Amino acid sequence: MASHAQDRIDPWGSVCIDDLEKLYTRFGIERITPSIKKEFSGNPFFSRNIVIGHRDLSTLIRAKKRGKPFYCMTGIASSGLFHLGHKVVIDLVLSLKEYGARVFFAVADIDAYVSRPDKKVPSIQKAKEYAIENLAHALALGVDERDVYVQSRMPSRYYEFAFELSKKMTENEYKAIYGHLDPGKMSAVILQIADILHPQLEEFGEPMPGIVPVGPDQDPHIRFSRDIAKRFRNRYGFFAPGGLYLLHMPALRSGDKMSSSKPETAVFLNDTSSEAARKISNAITGGRKTLKEQKEKGGEPDKCRVWALLRYTLESDSQLLEIREKCLSGGIMCGECKRLASERVGAFLDEHHKRLEKTRKKAEKMVLG
Amino acid sequence: MASHAQDRIDPWGSVCIDDLEKLYTRFGIERITPSIKKEFSGNPFFSRNIVIGHRDLSTLIRAKKRGKPFYCMTGIASSGLFHLGHKVVIDLVLSLKEYGARVFFAVADIDAYVSRPDKKVPSIQKAKEYAIENLAHALALGVDERDVYVQSRMPSRYYEFAFELSKKMTENEYKAIYGHLDPGKMSAVILQIADILHPQLEEFGEPMPGIVPVGPDQDPHIRFSRDIAKRFRNRYGFFAPGGLYLLHMPALRSGDKMSSSKPETAVFLNDTSSEAARKISNAITGGRKTLKEQKEKGGEPDKCRVWALLRYTLESDSQLLEIREKCLSGGIMCGECKRLASERVGAFLDEHHKRLEKTRKKAEKMVLG
Repeated sequence: MASHAQDRIDPWGSVCIDDLEKLYTRFGIERITPSIKKEFSGNPFFSRNIVIGHRDLSTLIRAKKRGKPFYCMTGIASSGLFHLGHKVVIDLVLSLKEYGARVFFAVADIDAYVSRPDKKVPSIQKAKEYAIENLAHALALGVDERDVYVQSRMPSRYYEFAFELSKKMTENEYKAIYGHLDPGKMSAVILQIADILHPQLEEFGEPMPGIVPVGPDQDPHIRFSRDIAKRFRNRYGFFAPGGLYLLHMPALRSGDKMSSSKPETAVFLNDTSSEAARKISNAITGGRKTLKEQKEKGGEPDKCRVWALLRYTLESDSQLLEIREKCLSGGIMCGECKRLASERVGAFLDEHHKRLEKTRKKAEKMVLG
Repeated sequence: MASHAQDRIDPWGSVCIDDLEKLYTRFGIERITPSIKKEFSGNPFFSRNIVIGHRDLSTLIRAKKRGKPFYCMTGIASSGLFHLGHKVVIDLVLSLKEYGARVFFAVADIDAYVSRPDKKVPSIQKAKEYAIENLAHALALGVDERDVYVQSRMPSRYYEFAFELSKKMTENEYKAIYGHLDPGKMSAVILQIADILHPQLEEFGEPMPGIVPVGPDQDPHIRFSRDIAKRFRNRYGFFAPGGLYLLHMPALRSGDKMSSSKPETAVFLNDTSSEAARKISNAITGGRKTLKEQKEKGGEPDKCRVWALLRYTLESDSQLLEIREKCLSGGIMCGECKRLASERVGAFLDEHHKRLEKTRKKAEKMVLG
């Protein structure tokens, strides 16, 4: 039993999954094969191994080849501010939209309230404040407002469906997956699965293959959604929704991934370009103890948070590989990489803040009506 | 622990609570005092001891005396057909409306689906069929359509609120009250408490005392609603909702109370007057073995299901007491009581079926839109 509990991927924790091999062999997440990379050629999330696995992506690819519809579902259930890690997920979703997916983008305000502790989200009103703020960012990042829905403003059929789903969950399986039976968190799970499946209802879309981009730690949700989908297959003709697993953007300093609750680990989308530059200048790098040593041995990009930042943000694969080579051979020092990263991130932030001026009002209207 | 489990009033069971004393002393339900009977003089539910206890009725009476608003919440979550026992609850609610209560009448279709086993309610569509049928009866019994709302057709605020409530429930207390943590049944509980409390939200009403008429077996819901209301008092100014406990109409034959799943125990509102007469003629009475013995010793009205039926349906208290006296003194035989009951119930049914012709279409429109 103890080993079982350890093996469980905890969706409520915040631990990065380093052991990719275990994901494939023990949890049955499928690998990104060369033919999938070819299918998504030009998409940096696939070429750079940021997407590290999937469930049922092949069903979606088949639908695309046959000209049938398919969808990508994602959402924000924030109890904190958007950072570059959130941007990565949104960029991935936008790349899937370009590939042809119908996008369903949830502003999960009810979810954020019921699943987060009171000290973080003390009221549904506070959840809506976060929702407005983060939706403004999402819109500024290029999310199409027509693809967005706000959980608390859905038609009654959505909620009826959420409750409907709960009937097909058993106490024992729920406990086995999530390790708790807390009513509030259970509400969040029910809503999340409704979010994932409702695009396949005739009231909102149609039965079709779908994909949900998540961190590997969210795989239990995906697996559970797939199980529940099967239980309603006779009634609604659901396809089991697929998952697309991506590695979260690494933290700049301590910790595994950028986190809203640890400001120095992340570049927030509200940070000024100079704040961002300061955080980046303090980031952990793969540099050696002395310049001399680094020139001799080369740097260690796989340990470097600045290299990671570039890997998630630079447009050009070839420029990125060039930097990596230079680093390994001692031909580029950490300061230069930090300058490049600060420059790129700073330029993005300046543009983003301009767009944000226009999207805030729109977001407020979309959340509050 | 075992004795604790036995002491718990089980809201999912169907056992009548005979031991009234325990309700007062162990569970803290308050007695109906003479001054309350006086306050509700002319109301047969109080005069005939059909209402056998309450929680916080005094707060509601105070509101009435000060000209402040107060409400009565009830609903139907049927997985079966309406019988005379349902009529009793509706008549009680109508009497409270006459007393001045704002009535909130829930057609609890989602609740019925999620809380009932699949063999009874296999789909939300089936739940809506029951809802239409039973709403038609409720309207024919005099429920004002303006007081009715259909769970599956509420505005999003209602559902948001239901999920909001779930955050303030803990796993342990939930388990202690209901004895399970089944997701579907938990959804039903969350909806029920939303039903009970939402009249106090500004979107649907205002903070005010309220009362929910239930069988004593439903007291755990009431107590839990009261606890949850207190946790949202700061945010919404809720009054703890009160409870009004009534004894269910006894079964005509086996069992404790009329039950949809045991047709011979109940007169259904769809029964013809001759079907009703047949069931009543087969009812258990308090008659003696022979006519001679009955004339000598008198009958036993407290054992008699026909007397109970009259007690719940006859308009006149004095006529009722006269029959009781006659029975006790051997001056009236069971056949005569059965004839009287059949006549009264038959006349009601005939009238009801006429009204039903008009209300069915309306109910369908209200449930399906």
